[in-house]
Amino acid sequence: MQAEFTEAVQAVRPVNRSLAEVGQAHIDDLTKPRGSLGRLEELALKLYLIQEGAPSVDPMRIYTIAGDHGVNDEGVSLFPQEVTRQMILNFLNGGAGINVLAGTAGAQLYVVDAGACGGGFDEHPQLIQAKIAPGTANLAKGPAMTGEQSLQALLLGISLADRAAADGVRVLGTGDMGISNTTPSTALYCAYLGLAPEAMTGPGTGLDAKGVASKAEVVARGLAVNRAAVESGDPVAVLAALGGFEIAALAGLILGGAKNRQCVCVDGFISTAAYVAAWKICSAVEDYCVISHASAEPGHAEAVKALGLRPLLDLGFRLGEGTGAACAMYLVRSAADMYNKMATFSGAGVSEGGA
Amino acid sequence: MQAEFTEAVQAVRPVNRSLAEVGQAHIDDLTKPRGSLGRLEELALKLYLIQEGAPSVDPMRIYTIAGDHGVNDEGVSLFPQEVTRQMILNFLNGGAGINVLAGTAGAQLYVVDAGACGGGFDEHPQLIQAKIAPGTANLAKGPAMTGEQSLQALLLGISLADRAAADGVRVLGTGDMGISNTTPSTALYCAYLGLAPEAMTGPGTGLDAKGVASKAEVVARGLAVNRAAVESGDPVAVLAALGGFEIAALAGLILGGAKNRQCVCVDGFISTAAYVAAWKICSAVEDYCVISHASAEPGHAEAVKALGLRPLLDLGFRLGEGTGAACAMYLVRSAADMYNKMATFSGAGVSEGGA
Repeated sequence: MQAEFTEAVQAVRPVNRSLAEVGQAHIDDLTKPRGSLGRLEELALKLYLIQEGAPSVDPMRIYTIAGDHGVNDEGVSLFPQEVTRQMILNFLNGGAGINVLAGTAGAQLYVVDAGACGGGFDEHPQLIQAKIAPGTANLAKGPAMTGEQSLQALLLGISLADRAAADGVRVLGTGDMGISNTTPSTALYCAYLGLAPEAMTGPGTGLDAKGVASKAEVVARGLAVNRAAVESGDPVAVLAALGGFEIAALAGLILGGAKNRQCVCVDGFISTAAYVAAWKICSAVEDYCVISHASAEPGHAEAVKALGLRPLLDLGFRLGEGTGAACAMYLVRSAADMYNKMATFSGAGVSEGGA
Repeated sequence: MQAEFTEAVQAVRPVNRSLAEVGQAHIDDLTKPRGSLGRLEELALKLYLIQEGAPSVDPMRIYTIAGDHGVNDEGVSLFPQEVTRQMILNFLNGGAGINVLAGTAGAQLYVVDAGACGGGFDEHPQLIQAKIAPGTANLAKGPAMTGEQSLQALLLGISLADRAAADGVRVLGTGDMGISNTTPSTALYCAYLGLAPEAMTGPGTGLDAKGVASKAEVVARGLAVNRAAVESGDPVAVLAALGGFEIAALAGLILGGAKNRQCVCVDGFISTAAYVAAWKICSAVEDYCVISHASAEPGHAEAVKALGLRPLLDLGFRLGEGTGAACAMYLVRSAADMYNKMATFSGAGVSEGGA
């Protein structure tokens, strides 16, 4: 299992930046003043480098990966773990935010049970049942996952990217579902980026100030009790100690996407924590990823700043599920359309730079 | 003509805010934590109030309205006026940014010649020929338009909204094309909002610092020479003195959209200047308008702040044509889909607030 993982990570290659000049020259030849489509132009160049040619973005696919968290015992969420299961059923019934927004974006949606509490689910064409265990252990008392479990989850994510690649998918979106999962995500940000629990902990789904303070204390306890892993410098050990099944699977999805030269639209607070894990494992993933949106969870801005990245959208979302990724995918499609469908100055008879 | 205009303006009604409670109750019953889809929820409520019921957004239509500007004589742009005409032809050939992005957004596109230099164009199913004159007069030397011309342009815009309403269009996008049109737009912001030319003048399509300083001086001269209009307190007189054919037509489009209870996605720097004109004429237009994106033209942020508004997107666009409106229309569709297609807590058996 370790060998398989190492091999996948080693297969991730940075993009070849020497191609940027050619891609940029085409973008600059489109009938608009240079740079006047701003971030759409940056996205188009990113896609060009990922695909090493004129970008093609369809089909797009979002994986919404679910898991439960033992740290829920510490009262870090207003909601019981059963809601994770209820929301999986809601996804399968087509009624959640991500069903709707994936549809609007023209993206496929698959739901993955990586570790929700309770048993299996009835079969469903959009459901991938890959439960590693019914919820993690309580990270405030010890490691959330064993090393083997976290490797299993990483490989699950890689296999999802591979399955998408086999289906021709060019653009992936990451989504999460898991009651209490802002807590492990916060702990991961603190551990990976050296940020302070008090600065990074936010309300998640509706905690008041007292709840936030208590949650920050739980995060600090988790960091202390897992100090050996945190200080090991081994990103997979950190992920095992403080992460969760869906978070590790999302990190695997990001690594797998990069390996397959897929563009990965990283959703909000939870998915960005998975991105940081993947990036710590292999920094070349940054060439393939788009931070879709600025989460309303306050620590997200801190984390994104520490990473030197700029989210594409800022819509005040704090839902997860992949909803921000779905909206970003629309902009990815717009960028590819711009690249492929606009006329060029040379062809259109327009004085260069005009508008 | 004046009576027709007055009648149209008087037909604009603020939305009925007493309906907000019912619309909000539905949004809060969707299977997501309250408020967790942020600005999409705000948009959905706006649409609900505009339409007084579950929102329907298709068809959507963008009007890209073109005009030329006598102030181009002052060297405020790097490009000659012929580019306006070339770009109209590029729009009709389908190769411009707005063609592509309207297509991606699923919006219809019409191009309107409100006052480009030169003669008429060959007929084209997407072209509306409504040239008021081949370019305005130089606003740095006197009024850009006569009172009659500006009224004509306003009525043209209202007629475009009416034509769209007759075709069932629920959502409008505003777009502009006109070499030098950041100059009249800047002058309008200064006149309507009491802002200073030095603070509001930006590079448009590529001026250097010296060019910007000289453009600011042209704006200041325009304000001085048209002082009587600026100080008249009559927003239509200000528009005539400092605006342009496409800007006045866009103001009319916004007024007409509000009259017809259409949602209007206002594009960037030029369109927002038209929005300010429309809002000064009838402040109820604010209930119907969305500021689509933050333009990269620096004065836009100042103007939007002065208006107390927040653009939906910030993608560094500075192209105009309606490209930012096209992207915002996608979010309008997403908001309506959210409203109409998500399951409710009462119906889905999900514990309220979960995610």
